[in-house]
Amino acid sequence: MFQARRYQHCPTCGGQIEYRVPADDNRERATCTQCGAIHYENPLNVVGTLPVWGEQVLLCKRAIEPRLGKWTLPAGFMELGETLAEGAQRETVEEAGARIELENLYCVMNVVRVGQVHLFYRAQLLSPDFDPGPETLEARLFHEHEIPWDEIAFHTIRETLQRFFEDRRAGRGYPLHTADIG
Amino acid sequence: MFQARRYQHCPTCGGQIEYRVPADDNRERATCTQCGAIHYENPLNVVGTLPVWGEQVLLCKRAIEPRLGKWTLPAGFMELGETLAEGAQRETVEEAGARIELENLYCVMNVVRVGQVHLFYRAQLLSPDFDPGPETLEARLFHEHEIPWDEIAFHTIRETLQRFFEDRRAGRGYPLHTADIG
Repeated sequence: MFQARRYQHCPTCGGQIEYRVPADDNRERATCTQCGAIHYENPLNVVGTLPVWGEQVLLCKRAIEPRLGKWTLPAGFMELGETLAEGAQRETVEEAGARIELENLYCVMNVVRVGQVHLFYRAQLLSPDFDPGPETLEARLFHEHEIPWDEIAFHTIRETLQRFFEDRRAGRGYPLHTADIG
Repeated sequence: MFQARRYQHCPTCGGQIEYRVPADDNRERATCTQCGAIHYENPLNVVGTLPVWGEQVLLCKRAIEPRLGKWTLPAGFMELGETLAEGAQRETVEEAGARIELENLYCVMNVVRVGQVHLFYRAQLLSPDFDPGPETLEARLFHEHEIPWDEIAFHTIRETLQRFFEDRRAGRGYPLHTADIG
């Protein structure tokens, strides 16, 4: 089972951490040998959008590791102080400088291996002009036949794009998709 | 904006933490004054189910704080090593000892104030017999007119129940609901 084991010291008092099963629990937790505090490690949400302009979708070429130079949908870690939708919108502005109108929550995908849940919203671009931020080398629109499938940064991006093109061809709307990525 | 500011010491080296904005960032992060490590704080997922037996739904009376003695749907923090659905199923077993078959992801609710996202699945009970765990005083089935609306533990539980009964009356299925809880 995925276990982060990220703690060596207690964030509260600085004491030594031991991983042990608390009395009322059934899994090992980061426990302070000095003050007794228990620190939990839990999955994180990555939020993003699938921005559409007519027949085309927006992809961003990554300027940072991991997957530098590969293509992605705009996405990043959800922050405290925002909703899932606000986070998705923020990442789209930060990474692509794109103006969008958010639509429905479209894909919810578990990536258990890395302790993440990826959530993508569909979005309509309000303009085909972009202003990529420092995490993006290039932001551009792709028709389906132009998508660089071998140069897509992450599994969940490929899955989201594939489902979108399938749904569009089927013409039956864009219902929520859920998936578990191995 | 909600900011946890949970760190006083670096979990890696035990050094003193200062909250400051890193060079390539735009918000304050827990930064170690000794080793320079940056520690991020992000929202957490709470996963649960709305278990149904014929016309009735399952609620659990909480044996722990917060909201000791109030009624809730079985739910708790998503753990590393599991999917959203697996977490929802696990919590239902742990809190109610209920046997269920999971259905669709039904409610996704942002609780920005506490840095959480609550996600509830619909579920069919496979039996009306329960075996509540130590976090639950009592697990029982309620018809809609019996729901103790003034004794519901959390906003998101009330919202999920209300939407379920509305959808059931409307007879148009159970589509995904999203909401932001103030």
